[in-house]
Formats: sequence, structure tokens, C-alpha cells
Amino acid sequence: MQGPQPRQRPAATYPPTERTVPTRSPDRAAYDRELVHAILDEGYVCHLGFVRDGAPVVLPTLYGRVGEVLYVHGSTGSRPLRAAGRADQGLPVCLTVTHVDGLVLARSAFHHSVNYRSVVVHGLAYDVTDPEEKRQALDALVDHVVPGRAADSRPASKKELAATAVIRLELDEVSAKLRTGGVNDEPEDLALPHWAGVVPLSKGYDTPLADPDLAPGTELPGYLTAL
Amino acid sequence: MQGPQPRQRPAATYPPTERTVPTRSPDRAAYDRELVHAILDEGYVCHLGFVRDGAPVVLPTLYGRVGEVLYVHGSTGSRPLRAAGRADQGLPVCLTVTHVDGLVLARSAFHHSVNYRSVVVHGLAYDVTDPEEKRQALDALVDHVVPGRAADSRPASKKELAATAVIRLELDEVSAKLRTGGVNDEPEDLALPHWAGVVPLSKGYDTPLADPDLAPGTELPGYLTAL
Repeated sequence: MQGPQPRQRPAATYPPTERTVPTRSPDRAAYDRELVHAILDEGYVCHLGFVRDGAPVVLPTLYGRVGEVLYVHGSTGSRPLRAAGRADQGLPVCLTVTHVDGLVLARSAFHHSVNYRSVVVHGLAYDVTDPEEKRQALDALVDHVVPGRAADSRPASKKELAATAVIRLELDEVSAKLRTGGVNDEPEDLALPHWAGVVPLSKGYDTPLADPDLAPGTELPGYLTAL
Repeated sequence: MQGPQPRQRPAATYPPTERTVPTRSPDRAAYDRELVHAILDEGYVCHLGFVRDGAPVVLPTLYGRVGEVLYVHGSTGSRPLRAAGRADQGLPVCLTVTHVDGLVLARSAFHHSVNYRSVVVHGLAYDVTDPEEKRQALDALVDHVVPGRAADSRPASKKELAATAVIRLELDEVSAKLRTGGVNDEPEDLALPHWAGVVPLSKGYDTPLADPDLAPGTELPGYLTAL
């Protein structure tokens, strides 16, 4: 008699596919699962692409990650979510998340660049119909924006859940792409009198602005002061 | 005899089309030309969508604006740029630029949102073959990232120009979408003990990191100290 099988650990990398191997700068591509998760978890706004009447559409939207699944939500009336709901076999989508880390100013116009980290996910998006999965997805979306916030808000009602469409996209065909480091000028340009280097970009939070109708005694929660 | 006709000023708004009028939250859509230009000019990284083998692809890339034309550049080997070069009738693309301005924390999970400003451009992208237009486009791209920088760098050589593909996209079918302001909680939720409000996001520049091989005496230029 055997005991329970140990749960299989996912491979450390996503297997590259024809469309996740770039034709240019393949050295900038990465498939490491932890790196992909870290890039995804640092953001909360993605750009979701789908095809409508043969033409591409790219919309910014919020997302959340639960393990190897990304969730995107929207109104049940929005076009991509309606399309996913109709598509029994899933809606082909491409979901991209990008962080820009620095401006790379080379001596030559040609070698100007930016340092960035991006993740591109290809796959089929499916409408989430199970209420429990939908609720967990919405919690993940809220916690993606501000960790700890989902537990400190009124959960969605049945009516609100019904008005919200959620689609799921498996992390399966995935790649990261990165540019890091300094300028790559041509050797013969090094003596030119143009300043060259990297301007790092910073992101932050300004002082939270409380709603004027806060219930008396409501304090700024710790997860916001910690931001 | 008539003198020269006065140059026609563009209309103050982009005419809405079926695909630039959202099915949801139409009150957030705007077509004002100056607003669209301002949102485009504040950024330099867009998400460019195109269709490949029937599936959407969304890639982050740099862009520049010259009047009513957007330029996107890349290697002549990259997929969308090669596809645009082959497409006599233009490559259908969707180019989206998004700025996230604040996190909107409502008392209810359902009403969480973000404040943002985005522009979505639909159209056909064409390969730029005229060397002079290509050069101007590259200057616009560099100046979009750091205004004033194009004039303070070595211009692209003929060989570099030949290795760079540039596509042009007319600002024709364009819309902006915005969410501003505070939380929109349900009246019956106002007394709940959850903090609610907006957390403004800030973006900035950290101290520039000079390339170690700068020519002696090269100072940080004024357009960088002014950032």
C-alpha cells in the first residue's frame, strides 16, 4: 500500500514555445517561473489584447494572480468579457505586464533604450462561472492592488458578483523579457561630448486622501501606512 | 484671384466610431484632441497589439508623436515591424497608452478601482521608407523619452537607419478614457468601519548614473537636471 503521492512541484521554468522565443534579442528573454511571478506580482494593471472583427484591441485592466492562474475582471457588459463568456473553447488573449525601470541615454540616438521588465502571457481566457472561484478571484484582484485590503472591505454581495465578469488565464505559455544595465555605445562613440548613462525611474505613493464621509474614528490602516 | 488658402485646423475632437465608444462607462470616454495629445505626450512606452496567426500579441514598445502621427520603432527583424513592411495595405494595430494616477479604495470590494488616463488608437500601421521621415521619427522617439535629448546625441548613421524599422500610425480613430475623483460607495456602506479614499501614485526620477567612460569634462545636461 502506498501513502499519498507527494504533490508534483511545477518545473522551475515555463517551456519556451515558438511564440515566446523572440526573433530579436533572445538573450533578453527569460522563462524562470519565480521571476515571472515576481514581475506579475509587482504590478496590478495589465494590457489585455484580444481580436475583434479581425482587428486587435488592447485595453488596460486590473489583474490578480492565484498560483498559476491570472484573473481579469470587468463588467459583464464589457466586450472582451462577453466574448469570453460566449467562447466555449476560450477567447485567445495576450496579457502583458510591463515595468519601466530606467531611461538609457546613449551617446548615439540609435542606442537609446529603456530598462524594463515585462511578462507576456499567451493563452485562452475562460469565463469564471463558479461563485466561489469568482469570489477568490476578486479578493486576489483587490489584494494585488493593496496587499491585505480584501480582508478589510465589505465582500461582494450575490448581486455584485452576478454583475461582475471574471476571466481566468492559465500561466502556461509565458515569457519574461528584460533589459538591465548601462549604455551600449559603439566604441568609436565613447569620446563624444554627450552625457551618457541611466536615469533610474522611481514610483511611489503620495499621502492617502480620506473619503470625506469616513465613519467617525476610522484610522488609516497599517497596510496603507506601510506602503 | 485668391491668395493662399488658410491651412485647415483639425477639429477639436476625434470623431467617435463604433469601436471607440465603449459599451460600459461611456461617461469615461473622451475624444478631445488636446487631451489625447497630452496623455500621449506624458508617456513614452505604449502597448502595441497586432494579430499573428489569428491570435493577439501585445508588446511594450517606445513611441513618439509628430502632430497627428505616432511612430513606433524596432529592429527590422522584429515580427510586427516585418509584418507591417510586408503589408501593402497596412497592418491592423491597436496602440494603447495608460497612466495610473491613484488607487481607489472603497468600503466595498466591488467598488475598488484605480484612477487612470488612457488613450487607445486603432488603425493601420505602415512601414516608413522615406529616410528623412525615418530620421524625424527617431528624433521624436528620443525626445519623447527626454525632451531635448535628440539634439544632444549623435544622429543615426545610414547603416543604423537601415537597421531600424519605423512604423507610422495616423491619429484618426482615437479615444481617451479616464477615471478621476474619489470613491463611489453605496450609501448603505458609508457607515462601515473600513477606511476609504484615494492613494495618489507618484512617479519620478532618481539621480542619473553616469556611464563610467564619459569623456572628461562632460557635465550633466540641463534637460536632465530639470527632470
